[in-house]
Amino acid sequence: MVAAPEQTQTLETTLETLCVNSIRFLAIDAVEKAKSGHPGLPMGAAPMAFVLWDRFLKFNPKNPKWVDRDRFVLSAGHGCMLQYALLHLAGYDSVTLEDIQQFRQWGSRTPGHPENFETEGVEVTTGPLGQGISNAVGLAIAEAHLAARFNKPGHKIVDHYTYVILGDGCNMEGVASEAVSLAGHLKLGKLIALYDSNHISIDGSTDLAFTEDVGKRYEAYGWHVLHVPDGDTNLAAIAQALTEAKAVTDKPSLLVITTTIGYGSPKKAGSEKVHGAPLGGDEVTATRQNLNWPYDPFVVPEDALAHFRQAIGRGAQAEAAWNETFAAYQAAYPAEAAEFERVMAGRLPENWEAALQPVTEMEKSTRLLSEACLNALAGAIPEFLGGSADLAHSNMTFLKGLPEFQASSYEGRNFRFGVREHGMGAILNGMALHGGLLPYGATFLVFADYMKAAIRLSALSQVGVIYVMTHDSIMLGEDGPTHQPIETIASLRATPDVLVNRPADAKETVAAYAVAIADRKRPSVLCFTRQGVKNLPGTSVEGAKKGGYVVVSADNPDLILIATGSELELATKAAAILSEEGKAVRVVSMPCWELFEDQPAAYREEVLPAACRKRVAVEAGTTFGWHKYAGSEGAVIGIDRFGASAPGPICYEKFGFTVDNVVATARQVLG
Amino acid sequence: MVAAPEQTQTLETTLETLCVNSIRFLAIDAVEKAKSGHPGLPMGAAPMAFVLWDRFLKFNPKNPKWVDRDRFVLSAGHGCMLQYALLHLAGYDSVTLEDIQQFRQWGSRTPGHPENFETEGVEVTTGPLGQGISNAVGLAIAEAHLAARFNKPGHKIVDHYTYVILGDGCNMEGVASEAVSLAGHLKLGKLIALYDSNHISIDGSTDLAFTEDVGKRYEAYGWHVLHVPDGDTNLAAIAQALTEAKAVTDKPSLLVITTTIGYGSPKKAGSEKVHGAPLGGDEVTATRQNLNWPYDPFVVPEDALAHFRQAIGRGAQAEAAWNETFAAYQAAYPAEAAEFERVMAGRLPENWEAALQPVTEMEKSTRLLSEACLNALAGAIPEFLGGSADLAHSNMTFLKGLPEFQASSYEGRNFRFGVREHGMGAILNGMALHGGLLPYGATFLVFADYMKAAIRLSALSQVGVIYVMTHDSIMLGEDGPTHQPIETIASLRATPDVLVNRPADAKETVAAYAVAIADRKRPSVLCFTRQGVKNLPGTSVEGAKKGGYVVVSADNPDLILIATGSELELATKAAAILSEEGKAVRVVSMPCWELFEDQPAAYREEVLPAACRKRVAVEAGTTFGWHKYAGSEGAVIGIDRFGASAPGPICYEKFGFTVDNVVATARQVLG
Repeated sequence: MVAAPEQTQTLETTLETLCVNSIRFLAIDAVEKAKSGHPGLPMGAAPMAFVLWDRFLKFNPKNPKWVDRDRFVLSAGHGCMLQYALLHLAGYDSVTLEDIQQFRQWGSRTPGHPENFETEGVEVTTGPLGQGISNAVGLAIAEAHLAARFNKPGHKIVDHYTYVILGDGCNMEGVASEAVSLAGHLKLGKLIALYDSNHISIDGSTDLAFTEDVGKRYEAYGWHVLHVPDGDTNLAAIAQALTEAKAVTDKPSLLVITTTIGYGSPKKAGSEKVHGAPLGGDEVTATRQNLNWPYDPFVVPEDALAHFRQAIGRGAQAEAAWNETFAAYQAAYPAEAAEFERVMAGRLPENWEAALQPVTEMEKSTRLLSEACLNALAGAIPEFLGGSADLAHSNMTFLKGLPEFQASSYEGRNFRFGVREHGMGAILNGMALHGGLLPYGATFLVFADYMKAAIRLSALSQVGVIYVMTHDSIMLGEDGPTHQPIETIASLRATPDVLVNRPADAKETVAAYAVAIADRKRPSVLCFTRQGVKNLPGTSVEGAKKGGYVVVSADNPDLILIATGSELELATKAAAILSEEGKAVRVVSMPCWELFEDQPAAYREEVLPAACRKRVAVEAGTTFGWHKYAGSEGAVIGIDRFGASAPGPICYEKFGFTVDNVVATARQVLG
Repeated sequence: MVAAPEQTQTLETTLETLCVNSIRFLAIDAVEKAKSGHPGLPMGAAPMAFVLWDRFLKFNPKNPKWVDRDRFVLSAGHGCMLQYALLHLAGYDSVTLEDIQQFRQWGSRTPGHPENFETEGVEVTTGPLGQGISNAVGLAIAEAHLAARFNKPGHKIVDHYTYVILGDGCNMEGVASEAVSLAGHLKLGKLIALYDSNHISIDGSTDLAFTEDVGKRYEAYGWHVLHVPDGDTNLAAIAQALTEAKAVTDKPSLLVITTTIGYGSPKKAGSEKVHGAPLGGDEVTATRQNLNWPYDPFVVPEDALAHFRQAIGRGAQAEAAWNETFAAYQAAYPAEAAEFERVMAGRLPENWEAALQPVTEMEKSTRLLSEACLNALAGAIPEFLGGSADLAHSNMTFLKGLPEFQASSYEGRNFRFGVREHGMGAILNGMALHGGLLPYGATFLVFADYMKAAIRLSALSQVGVIYVMTHDSIMLGEDGPTHQPIETIASLRATPDVLVNRPADAKETVAAYAVAIADRKRPSVLCFTRQGVKNLPGTSVEGAKKGGYVVVSADNPDLILIATGSELELATKAAAILSEEGKAVRVVSMPCWELFEDQPAAYREEVLPAACRKRVAVEAGTTFGWHKYAGSEGAVIGIDRFGASAPGPICYEKFGFTVDNVVATARQVLG
């Protein structure tokens, strides 16, 4: 526990104290009213947040989407009342005092963790620890790339910082380790992280589980590390550290700022008790007394509000200055200016989809078809860029002839994420949420597990990140069960708002990319084969865009075979055999369930008529979930155990993926 | 590229060179024959592996399960031919020369990555990078705990090291960062990691993405770090470093050993080309010439084999010496010795299940019922231990009155994993695979995403780790969609060999623990409510152990309501209303699908008769997967979107979890 009097003695009469305490009490009061939330972080981090927002952060409260604003990320998202208080005090329209009073209530703009899709001024969705700092690496990458791409001598139209507040919890998470290691490698000098080092996590003191030297670790990553030992009271030291951080341009900076969680609460400051629960009425009163705060709940002193609201004028000025910069740029480089406006608005170039057309004629593994799509798209869409988590040779994701994104070449579009799947996913989210970029990332499908938390946040954050996932079944072969996806596709299909696409051939691969690029609100997980596939008669780009469609017709079918990806060939061959036996067999390709579910009921009924209950679904993965389409009288050919190490074709046969088995199963279902 | 001549000049005539090259060529030849695999790591890491296995590692090839053996983990699992070569050369019966010639073939004992369940002598299943080093932390924790628990003055029956070989890939993974940070905190002095620092990963030089100072990072974690700059040739330096590492007993040690990937290959050494593909016939020949290797494929020189096989005698001696130590212990401490034998054999104590009985009478949230079970089991099963990833207060996982496992108290049974979910999962796998421990770990259910890769490996490795997952639905409330599981349960159900258990009340919670403890081959994911639940008439321990059973009977039912967890109460109330309307309504509780699927078909038909097609399933999560039981004519009440921030009961109602909605849906289904 830190004694509050010290602070009140030195700062009690200053306007700054009033401002810092305004943040604290909005947080205290909102959590108290909601009877739920995390007052500790806002109370402890209020000084650093105030200094940052008051003296450094470049933003325009009346235009939260101004493209050259600094990006602010509260990685310790549970402390969201800090961010809501700042947004409100600085004059954003998105968070009114009423919104703060509705903290954590149904339909409010002040949910329990910051959500970019609910509250203007919130850049990324945080809460799951470690994600925010990793998103911030992506935001800083986006700035560096756009600056390299668009700035011209004498014309800096992209020139902003990314600031993060993160806590002990974020620093314990592996995803953060991955991302900040890459940030150090990439020398992202305009990324500045403020580490609210309060030595308390939910369970108690960090002495329980977290005694590493965080600053030294960041130095090992290549970061510039500064310490502010008295972050509760020494606002000048915080400002000085931020100034020094900005001066170092070839390294990201970490400010280790020692603070007291729940600062000001006589009984709970410095303890885990103030982390995630309301102070309680008596303690709120005691804290008011301790910090000399005579105001009623939710009352912000006029002087403080007036001071905070200067941000409106400052922001208008800053944006106006930038508008002049941009106008000059526009005059000198009209084409580049138009292009900049286009990418920042998220508008795709005209006719981008035409670039994919030649791929429909190719015939090879879908991962090689994917490579052709990626390269075609790279030519057509300059903001399209990405890379692999150290599997570029296997995922086939390199954009040929284009430079790498490295510290010496931020204009590059080929990313080297290293063996950091989770970090990659979170970085992609940041890159996409920055605006101006359309990013993809790649690994083996099975390693979606490593980054599922980030994929989930792509979906929740409504951002169309593209995940290129190759080696999509046991046909991966020799690497064996640790590398063979079984449940992976099902677990992603079960996740809301993710487009999981498993194309069968060239036309369907083109459709998968066409949809993934066009849908800027939903992430796509594209699942590609290691092995070669044939182009099948009956497939079509238009059909595949509907998620499910008929590839082998049969009116009033006796049986419907449903398949995805490489198994569609088996289904078509089985259908041919069964047809020769006089059965009316329809084959439905269903590369993307989510797109199929988007279709009108009449279309779905047309493709899968309820009257035909004899159905067999085939997919080289778990049967889990397939009964929805196979129905009570149908059968599913899948794999409900782990895979095995052997050449792919051997695995395929051993696990029952043969035309014979599909035919035999169909006969059984037909009875 | 490193020139080979230097090495051949200094070492060519020595027996050691012959031994090191025996490892290299078994790997080269096996990969060549399989036309698939990773020769580069075995070729580069052969010297360190030879020194370790020849001079340090304590093991008995003829008794791979000897309890006081050192544990060896190849975290860079793709280099498994290194491990298979070592096992074969050292005289394990599990890997014959024929097995090596069957590398990566269907049914072989030499799969594409090391798998503990396929090959005796392999301690843990590796391949997904970062897992092995994290498992090793768990193995070292197990050793420390068992030593603290069982050793007596003058009687050291538990006294072994854990050695790991890991590469750049492992060191990039966040899961490894989490685990090694905790290892440093816990001062695990008997954990020694050999970092095969060859500066090459799959995509090429580590300069592409990984330029951090790894040694400094480990120092920041509290590790003892040593460097061996000439790991290709200087066997004495490797031995010296290992000796120094063993001498430091209060810190884990990292040996940063600089090597050349693919050492010996004239054209491919030092390049990513040798990482994951056969050398090719010409290059194999060139490598033979370069390393003066006149032997045919798969031929091990007699002198080398004879030297390696001395391990058999050494191992027999070591075990005999230990047997004497144990006999003396047994004489002095017969009860402790019997207990040690029991836990190491994995036998549960007699009557452990009786301890759970009192919990069946309690009534509160299932997470509080879980707390009661955990504490009851802790009394009955001394090897039962675990903790939470910094959510002990929320997960309710603390074992009351027992000490914490900390550097100063390895006898403790309460673990503080920190905010390191993924590391926790991998550490739990290591703890369980060591033998002698029955571990559990806890976090919010939604954060299963963070550690899914480790949960998958629990299942694949056939190890009964217990995952205690609380806050199992949108009833989590105010924390909002980032913290509310939707697809989580489905994604785990889709995973092979995981018991996903979502009990409804006290009896079912007891059943869930009873099954989880008894099943030592399958991990359990136990899903518990935040909110209070009622004890329901009709539930039973015996029924719940079958995974699915009738809680409200109706012969020849018009309708079956199926539910899990907190939604079972809604189902029973709806059934009562519908019964009053004259409908015959059965209610089936289905806490664990996997256990239900284990039952004979006749039982399943008895519970869910095919003749009754009118069914409604209710679960506060995705509907994904439920159609298997709800059937084509049934309905599923679930949530196919992300959640929302609001008090739990509000969320529950808004998302349709009301008796009214269940009744209305049932009426619709009944038509």
